[in-house]
Amino acid sequence: MVVEVAELLGVTVFALSGGLLAARRGMDLFGAVVLALVAGLGGGTIRDVLLGAVPPANLSDAWAVGCAVGAGVVAFYQDLGLARFRRAVLVLDAGGLGLFTVNGAVTALSLGAPPMAAVFLGLLTGIGGGVLRDVLSGQVPVVLQDDIYALPCLAGSVLVVLLWQADAFTPVAGVLVAVLVFALRLLGRMRRWHLRRTPSQPPAWPERPPRPA
Amino acid sequence: MVVEVAELLGVTVFALSGGLLAARRGMDLFGAVVLALVAGLGGGTIRDVLLGAVPPANLSDAWAVGCAVGAGVVAFYQDLGLARFRRAVLVLDAGGLGLFTVNGAVTALSLGAPPMAAVFLGLLTGIGGGVLRDVLSGQVPVVLQDDIYALPCLAGSVLVVLLWQADAFTPVAGVLVAVLVFALRLLGRMRRWHLRRTPSQPPAWPERPPRPA
Amino acid sequence: MVVEVAELLGVTVFALSGGLLAARRGMDLFGAVVLALVAGLGGGTIRDVLLGAVPPANLSDAWAVGCAVGAGVVAFYQDLGLARFRRAVLVLDAGGLGLFTVNGAVTALSLGAPPMAAVFLGLLTGIGGGVLRDVLSGQVPVVLQDDIYALPCLAGSVLVVLLWQADAFTPVAGVLVAVLVFALRLLGRMRRWHLRRTPSQPPAWPERPPRPA
Repeated sequence: MVVEVAELLGVTVFALSGGLLAARRGMDLFGAVVLALVAGLGGGTIRDVLLGAVPPANLSDAWAVGCAVGAGVVAFYQDLGLARFRRAVLVLDAGGLGLFTVNGAVTALSLGAPPMAAVFLGLLTGIGGGVLRDVLSGQVPVVLQDDIYALPCLAGSVLVVLLWQADAFTPVAGVLVAVLVFALRLLGRMRRWHLRRTPSQPPAWPERPPRPA
Repeated sequence: MVVEVAELLGVTVFALSGGLLAARRGMDLFGAVVLALVAGLGGGTIRDVLLGAVPPANLSDAWAVGCAVGAGVVAFYQDLGLARFRRAVLVLDAGGLGLFTVNGAVTALSLGAPPMAAVFLGLLTGIGGGVLRDVLSGQVPVVLQDDIYALPCLAGSVLVVLLWQADAFTPVAGVLVAVLVFALRLLGRMRRWHLRRTPSQPPAWPERPPRPA
Repeated sequence: MVVEVAELLGVTVFALSGGLLAARRGMDLFGAVVLALVAGLGGGTIRDVLLGAVPPANLSDAWAVGCAVGAGVVAFYQDLGLARFRRAVLVLDAGGLGLFTVNGAVTALSLGAPPMAAVFLGLLTGIGGGVLRDVLSGQVPVVLQDDIYALPCLAGSVLVVLLWQADAFTPVAGVLVAVLVFALRLLGRMRRWHLRRTPSQPPAWPERPPRPA
């Protein structure tokens, strides 16, 4: 029960990020709903395809689909201050990252995937929805721009697999790992941690050129 | 028999759209054939991967592959007026959308997918080839720019699933749904129907900046 | 044994290309490792998903993952002259293309895929990693820009299937086909072979606009 609620929360916050991105880029309502679905359900769909669990479970889960669509509509029509909202999304998105990472790794292990494959599945489930969202809307995925996005995810995925291998994985441990991923992601973002960048290169991924007015 | 001809027609018109896009963007013949294959066969491949029907059927269907390659070559070498041709492609593309939507939903249902998954499969089969075509050629997918692309597709997919659930689905009903999707798509495009757009945003997806001369 | 070494070499050189691309575009170390993994393991993952061999084998192969990660780190930190290195990568990349093409087609045939599907699997295994790498980093895939990338790959894939159908496929023949793909790719690149381009179009795919300084 806790797990289901947590998962729906993850779907919802990723979907909110998709809907907000669509609104910012001038798409209409339907584009917002499509991007919300892609961001919210994409990670789970990639997980299920890579594990052969087809058709993917979240495509037939009315709660997940409903949460994603609702989040897309809300993100589109919200008239709250975007700045405040953006911080909320950052926080919730970090929570979704933690939950999906643990979920992906555990699903893979319980279906008998080898340990290293399970690590990848955790990683891809955590970041997959955001990557699809960004590629479809013509952006370089955030995971390639900000290294404190995928590193906590990778750490969490490895931790789950190690706990599982040691027969020490419990639901409580899973929640703790999700919280750890969440905290590392937020800390890294707030303190602007980053790995050494190649010195001969510009310091940041260049923004798309500004739209013609 | 009608179904096979209709499906090949769908493959062909999506492939034409891929080949035309490649020619317009200055790719050479091989790029045109690749984009034609991606656009023509992409939707069916996504459908089969999500349903676990691998290897995907249309990759081993000589007729489908032949139609897609032929359409790519024709689209590349045609010297007809592009404007006239573009309207023809719009019409045929709407036809393909209708046919693939019905085809995707019915295939999912007949393989035992749950109703909501079947709705998604119809949607993804209908729009999948176009999305892959646009992402590979560096464009934001048309489905995110023009909401009267995916809405008719979604409506048709829901309709097929409802008919199937009521044991009322027949081949004739399938053709009628495909015609409905086709008509809604064309009407929406011609009358420029659109959902309410967020008022604080520019009215349309910005074009890519012009190429340097 | 020869096959395993050859495959790891292919993973490594594709991964090097991903890491180099990341460094050139100003990503940090983690982005380089991610792009290296995508480029090195992407083709094999696509192959396994399309064949239903899940979870994909190379995601649980410590040697393949280790080679890809190592190549990403090396590509990021190397201080060799990039020009010299770029030619080396071109050569090795052509070798990887040959090896993965043969590997994809043979894997498909040995799992009972129909001949035409096997041709596609060879093609997609050969080019898949590079396509994912380019799409994720916001580029039009090289396969759509340079037709002497996919044509040798297609030729090699067809050749493997014909040999297999004639019961004449041996490991030695496989190596010879891989060498042929390698040689055609390099010759085509060096002599700038290309198919007839549509005359009304600019001669080359336009570069992205330069980054703002």
